[in-house]
Amino acid sequence: MLNTNVIALLTDFGMKDPYVGVMKGVIMGINPEARIIDVTHQVEPQNVRQAAFILSKIYTYFPPGTIFNVVVDPGVGGDRKPIAVETGEYTFIAPDNGVLSTVLESSPPRSIVEINNPDYVLHPVSNTFHGRDIFSPAAAYLSRPVRISDLGPALTEYEKLDAPTIRKGDDFIRGRVVFADHFGNLVTDINEQYLAGKEIRYIKAGPFTLDRVNTSYNQSKKGEMLCIVGSYGTLEVSVNQGAAAAKIRDYKDLPVKVKFAS
Amino acid sequence: MLNTNVIALLTDFGMKDPYVGVMKGVIMGINPEARIIDVTHQVEPQNVRQAAFILSKIYTYFPPGTIFNVVVDPGVGGDRKPIAVETGEYTFIAPDNGVLSTVLESSPPRSIVEINNPDYVLHPVSNTFHGRDIFSPAAAYLSRPVRISDLGPALTEYEKLDAPTIRKGDDFIRGRVVFADHFGNLVTDINEQYLAGKEIRYIKAGPFTLDRVNTSYNQSKKGEMLCIVGSYGTLEVSVNQGAAAAKIRDYKDLPVKVKFAS
Amino acid sequence: MLNTNVIALLTDFGMKDPYVGVMKGVIMGINPEARIIDVTHQVEPQNVRQAAFILSKIYTYFPPGTIFNVVVDPGVGGDRKPIAVETGEYTFIAPDNGVLSTVLESSPPRSIVEINNPDYVLHPVSNTFHGRDIFSPAAAYLSRPVRISDLGPALTEYEKLDAPTIRKGDDFIRGRVVFADHFGNLVTDINEQYLAGKEIRYIKAGPFTLDRVNTSYNQSKKGEMLCIVGSYGTLEVSVNQGAAAAKIRDYKDLPVKVKFAS
Repeated sequence: MLNTNVIALLTDFGMKDPYVGVMKGVIMGINPEARIIDVTHQVEPQNVRQAAFILSKIYTYFPPGTIFNVVVDPGVGGDRKPIAVETGEYTFIAPDNGVLSTVLESSPPRSIVEINNPDYVLHPVSNTFHGRDIFSPAAAYLSRPVRISDLGPALTEYEKLDAPTIRKGDDFIRGRVVFADHFGNLVTDINEQYLAGKEIRYIKAGPFTLDRVNTSYNQSKKGEMLCIVGSYGTLEVSVNQGAAAAKIRDYKDLPVKVKFAS
Repeated sequence: MLNTNVIALLTDFGMKDPYVGVMKGVIMGINPEARIIDVTHQVEPQNVRQAAFILSKIYTYFPPGTIFNVVVDPGVGGDRKPIAVETGEYTFIAPDNGVLSTVLESSPPRSIVEINNPDYVLHPVSNTFHGRDIFSPAAAYLSRPVRISDLGPALTEYEKLDAPTIRKGDDFIRGRVVFADHFGNLVTDINEQYLAGKEIRYIKAGPFTLDRVNTSYNQSKKGEMLCIVGSYGTLEVSVNQGAAAAKIRDYKDLPVKVKFAS
Repeated sequence: MLNTNVIALLTDFGMKDPYVGVMKGVIMGINPEARIIDVTHQVEPQNVRQAAFILSKIYTYFPPGTIFNVVVDPGVGGDRKPIAVETGEYTFIAPDNGVLSTVLESSPPRSIVEINNPDYVLHPVSNTFHGRDIFSPAAAYLSRPVRISDLGPALTEYEKLDAPTIRKGDDFIRGRVVFADHFGNLVTDINEQYLAGKEIRYIKAGPFTLDRVNTSYNQSKKGEMLCIVGSYGTLEVSVNQGAAAAKIRDYKDLPVKVKFAS
């Protein structure tokens, strides 16, 4: 297994509280050589689907061996298991609530364990902050490195999210807005691969109909609505030098349909 | 004295301005081997009491030897002293305005100095940004390590905050909400130790009365208000998968009373 | 050329999305020894002038050799060039849209190149995220170190911003508010040098007239409006323990005039 000492954190803890700082303190105490990268801590509170989407879109940009510590955990203190998963190139640590299922579709697991070895958690384990007491210690020990099999017993299954929202027809594809990014771009789950080689007739996003996919913001005037393949490699609904989220306020789960020439 | 090169930053500077980045640039210039952790920079502006609370709740999760650089400093440019304090296990650097007094109650000082050695500050010292000019250089030099006694003359006293707001009776304990965290949980100053072994009759938080302390969010339905011992080890008023701060908008300093069976 | 492995990031990407985390993942993959500092990621979206101001005010606090990776890039995907600039003490990487022109006034370039060597970018280069595909790889390779001349052909020109907004007369100086910082202080472009040795008659900021420049917040009462030379070394309009931006809501580009005794 590759090891780079890089631990990437992805949570919904926000930046207001010291929770992320505490996780880093715990990691540094266990492995002073760890190098920590914040993916983001502003996943919408308890939005497991958004975290799953983001993780699947960004992990390949990190060095092989990176340990992703994903803590979006509405069931903390309940009976969902904490798990660690190795894919050969990366390691993922998370609650077993489906948040890893999107990334594991494209990068299948070689090894899955339940994290329950008391030697590798912080005592006492709280009912509210497994990010500090279970997930961060596991990430830090794996980066020293401890073997994944030392963390607990092997599992053969992991939780999946509900089916994705993509529907494909002969002359159309339909998806949804997953979330609005910092610029107000509406990020959909329609991958650019689905658009390759197709002649687009129109794109419908809520009340707006657009006639093409831009290849650059510069092809539109300031304030104009446009479609573009964004930084996630999926279709985005944007406004040139503006915020689409301000024009389409009720964007959450908004259906987006791309109609092809047949 | 232990040394780990870890410098933990806790400020009210926010993330919008480059102030925190500048502090890190200054630290890196003095000690390229320093490893910097952000505790949080979103303490409410000039809320010394909130910073004191957070610091006291999180410092033990950091590696022994960590240097805490605490810059919540309404009196910057006035006559409050910049101080450095060693406790044997940790070092704290801050304006002498009471922000260290809560942590020093549980971890008494072995050595206190006023930081005034001109060799260890940035020149010229501004009237508005001692985080850059005094506190960060002090933290960086201590991490190289320079001895605390080199920073300036010993002090025997430090500023205390006003008395805490906890009141205890035979069959009750009363505290207050200190702040709302990122999830909208209302964090109180009522430590879990005060609740141990007690039979709780009810908890009163403003207009809401609750009949128990949950051990897990899962014990409540979605949207239900609940009490739980949160990540700070104190009682929190929460809403399962929601925000208590949205239900109790006037939460600041809100009295919270726990009534025990007598 | 000095090299410190320090890469400082300044963008308008915000903290909500994983864009900054992805840039760090890319950098760590190219140079595991890089030490990354966030200047800020909350420049107003596409506000090139604000980024130019901030960069020029903070770069000297970073260790010599620091590589500044400045990604405020409204023209991404268009025909503006990605450039790298060495000044002898620092290196700057940015889109050639004027964002470097303020810093290069005080620290003239020794070497400017267009970044177009395909060996030092990520493939495929997207149309929307040159921060990931061009600027961060360039920063990481320069920190290994690769020579700036390896990145692409030399340039002799770079884009300048429009003229600054400062106007000076015999007995006055006029500037503008550039932005509001996290505390609500209104940061102007009037440098303290312009005020040195002058007797001030009054300062006019929108509807407010003030009679002096404070040397400390403590010289004013709580809630009082005041002028002070702030952390950027420029005049700021502030409210003691409050937010000037709440009193002067229409602060953007607000003219500020300092009248001297003649």
